[in-house]
Amino acid sequence: MSAPNSAPNSAYSELHAHFGRVAALANAVGILQWDNDTMMPRGAAGQRAESMALLHVLRHGMMTDPRIGDWLAEAEEDASLGAWEKANLREVRRVWTIETAVPPDLVEASSRAISACEMTWRQARADADFKALLPSLTEVLKLQRAIGAAKGEKLGLSAYDALLNDYEPGGRSTAIDALFDDLADFLPGLTAEVLAVQARRPADPPLTGPFPVAAQRALGVEMMGVLGYDFERGRLDVSTHPFCGGADNDVRITTRYDEDDFTSALMGVIHETGHALYEQGRPQAQLGQPVSLARGMSIHESQSLLMEMQACRSREFLRFAAPVMRKAMGGSGQAWEAEALWRRYTEVERGFIRVDADEITYPAHVILRYRLEKALIADAMPLAELPLAWNAGMRDLLGVTPPNDRLGCLQDVHWPSGGWGYFPTYTLGAMTAAQLFDAACRANTDILPAIGRGDFAPLVNWLRSNIHIYGSFYETNDLLIHATGRPLDASVFKAHLRRRYIEEI
Amino acid sequence: MSAPNSAPNSAYSELHAHFGRVAALANAVGILQWDNDTMMPRGAAGQRAESMALLHVLRHGMMTDPRIGDWLAEAEEDASLGAWEKANLREVRRVWTIETAVPPDLVEASSRAISACEMTWRQARADADFKALLPSLTEVLKLQRAIGAAKGEKLGLSAYDALLNDYEPGGRSTAIDALFDDLADFLPGLTAEVLAVQARRPADPPLTGPFPVAAQRALGVEMMGVLGYDFERGRLDVSTHPFCGGADNDVRITTRYDEDDFTSALMGVIHETGHALYEQGRPQAQLGQPVSLARGMSIHESQSLLMEMQACRSREFLRFAAPVMRKAMGGSGQAWEAEALWRRYTEVERGFIRVDADEITYPAHVILRYRLEKALIADAMPLAELPLAWNAGMRDLLGVTPPNDRLGCLQDVHWPSGGWGYFPTYTLGAMTAAQLFDAACRANTDILPAIGRGDFAPLVNWLRSNIHIYGSFYETNDLLIHATGRPLDASVFKAHLRRRYIEEI
Repeated sequence: MSAPNSAPNSAYSELHAHFGRVAALANAVGILQWDNDTMMPRGAAGQRAESMALLHVLRHGMMTDPRIGDWLAEAEEDASLGAWEKANLREVRRVWTIETAVPPDLVEASSRAISACEMTWRQARADADFKALLPSLTEVLKLQRAIGAAKGEKLGLSAYDALLNDYEPGGRSTAIDALFDDLADFLPGLTAEVLAVQARRPADPPLTGPFPVAAQRALGVEMMGVLGYDFERGRLDVSTHPFCGGADNDVRITTRYDEDDFTSALMGVIHETGHALYEQGRPQAQLGQPVSLARGMSIHESQSLLMEMQACRSREFLRFAAPVMRKAMGGSGQAWEAEALWRRYTEVERGFIRVDADEITYPAHVILRYRLEKALIADAMPLAELPLAWNAGMRDLLGVTPPNDRLGCLQDVHWPSGGWGYFPTYTLGAMTAAQLFDAACRANTDILPAIGRGDFAPLVNWLRSNIHIYGSFYETNDLLIHATGRPLDASVFKAHLRRRYIEEI
Repeated sequence: MSAPNSAPNSAYSELHAHFGRVAALANAVGILQWDNDTMMPRGAAGQRAESMALLHVLRHGMMTDPRIGDWLAEAEEDASLGAWEKANLREVRRVWTIETAVPPDLVEASSRAISACEMTWRQARADADFKALLPSLTEVLKLQRAIGAAKGEKLGLSAYDALLNDYEPGGRSTAIDALFDDLADFLPGLTAEVLAVQARRPADPPLTGPFPVAAQRALGVEMMGVLGYDFERGRLDVSTHPFCGGADNDVRITTRYDEDDFTSALMGVIHETGHALYEQGRPQAQLGQPVSLARGMSIHESQSLLMEMQACRSREFLRFAAPVMRKAMGGSGQAWEAEALWRRYTEVERGFIRVDADEITYPAHVILRYRLEKALIADAMPLAELPLAWNAGMRDLLGVTPPNDRLGCLQDVHWPSGGWGYFPTYTLGAMTAAQLFDAACRANTDILPAIGRGDFAPLVNWLRSNIHIYGSFYETNDLLIHATGRPLDASVFKAHLRRRYIEEI
């Protein structure tokens, strides 16, 4: 840990040391979670669950240490503190308030309900049987509502906003309503327009595999290097669900390989590399302190989507990448031309499944889930009506109706696993990515041309100095204003979609 | 955790739950240590060290919880406890006594001194410069002596025996002196005799590589399967120094590959598999409790050496393994005949380096270190005289003199890293392995013939039911008496060496 500026025995320095220990524990948990998802043999699951539960109890004990309140009160009066220390105190108070808001028996009941519901969900999804999930999901929802209410009471927020606030500090549903209503008006028309345009394009020949895993991995590693990932402080591995995890200065990403299709693993690696660059770029001098952490999920998702959607589905990138891919995969022919790859990576389709959706249709999936979870937490809609409401929303927003609940409201693990309030951050992230990339390219007009030469340094330098290095120094809105001159709105995202899918085809 | 037999709120059940939590933490540490040695990127070392230090502090806090003493006193009066519970109490008291014996500031000073000394040692070894190591090793020795004295005071042992006791519970230097003196009398003569015999053998042609890592790994995995390793509860990976580690039901082994020589990686895998079978075979019903743990280092080493030396350097095994190796490595010709491989695996040479030594000369390296560390801890010899004493011992025991200290007293990390009292367990393990294998083969005369068919089940079943399943139920001596009918002596080991290297060549 770096020494704080403040005197050795001040309340601030006590907090600094204490949260340094919390971070050391969180780093251990991060690596064990990574191991759980990448390396752990099946038979170890029971023992590992006990270790994780114990570490969570120890962490909670440290986060709710009774001395924290006194240290905070005293440190907040300390006139000797600098801007970073003050921002750190704000973050310490924020995370401490959240951690102490929920009674331990509610936390325990919720984690038991979640474990049971996740298990039930796996079978219910396979069977497309929402009724089988209803009792355990009702229990999870009830407890999430109670958790939201407990946090909301402390924070002066509605239950939903209090849950949202865990993933998106400072996020408010009134602001999201306005942004998402704007998009919901815009996207159905755009989607129809884009599909009509794409229907007129000639079909490209297929990219024919197999593409061996070792070659795909080598290509992924090469691209991670191109993007600026630091392999001295991270790794690339395989997991069922790709993620970016690990610990401070140990930022590990994963992907999964399909030998018939290298393109999705590659874009997955690029996406996770965007997350990882953010994690690797957080302020070293504050590492271990709450102020050093990533700002929130919308900014985090903006970093992955900026790389995946803004930078790496650009014609500039694909002109650079096409010969690299061709060489790595041993491909040849027209399907491997930059323009053909660009068409492949910008193909739009109305589908049922969120994780398979493209840049244009993805927000509809998110807006649907956001509206439904908000209504469910507010008790404005019976959970039993979810399948009907889901299908109606899909029809309105996307113009398709899932033939069953496996392809509908049972597809995501978020609700069974207690992740209520998370969904909107995906599309907030996409919008933020567009706004940041636009600001970056205005600030340095060489960013896109450099990407065309395989040089990401101008882009990454801008991101480092405008986003990564601040950690949680600024609140989300202020960070965006500092970087782009204004708060988040939908206009740049909308303009980006029109430009890419209509104007510049 | 399995529920104890005793009533839910009894002192025993409190201890049971408490040590279950200690185990959950130890399992987390085990996986993080494995990660540290196999997966961790270089840049994470600093953060990881902080996480490990914190977890050690938390573990020490749990192990010295003031309630343990009261629970122990009360539980030891509990007439309702069964034999396993009583054995568990004995182990709880043992580990608790050791853990509380050393004042925290001494523990901390020692770990600081060790960190510094290990770093100095790396350079000093490279430079063959003992003088450069002397100051920091003096400090480590001084603190080890103090730790030994503190533990010895509580246990009624000399400082050296108290250190030895950490690795070899119940081990006493008087007993080891007798065993090692016996060997030291026997081995120099045998070595000369064997070398004379082997000098008359015709030279075998070399096994010519390269042997690709992937093929070596596949062969290692195949042999692990043959030996009975459970891949549902473990993994095989790569590290600089091979080890068996991980956690309960997650027993991970490592090896390192040399593309010019597959034989050493393979025997390394077999050695670690012997350790792993012990770990995987510990009593499931007691898992998490001190009584479930492996008995001590000499028994542990006996399990690896029984596989590596007794079973897998036998002619029976090599007759089975030769065609398997040939096929896996794509080899052909006389060098790949079972008899040639047997000669290769039983070649004896007087060398300077312990880890490269063969079955006959290895004990001499250990006896030398044991005698020296005992004298150093007892302050019966100045540390500055170590190089001279080392070289004199090598001359007496092995008939060779190291040309420098890199090939002499600087070769091992044990002393710089605070592992005083560990060395004798290697040779106690080799002797124990011989005595156990002999007893097993007498109890079931099909064990060796079955190995010749690639069937390790008869051997492993004997080990499981006579050693593994007992964990720490018996003390070492009692375990050996229970399994072989008598305490450890050197006779079976000596007979084994004479038979393999003189009588049956």
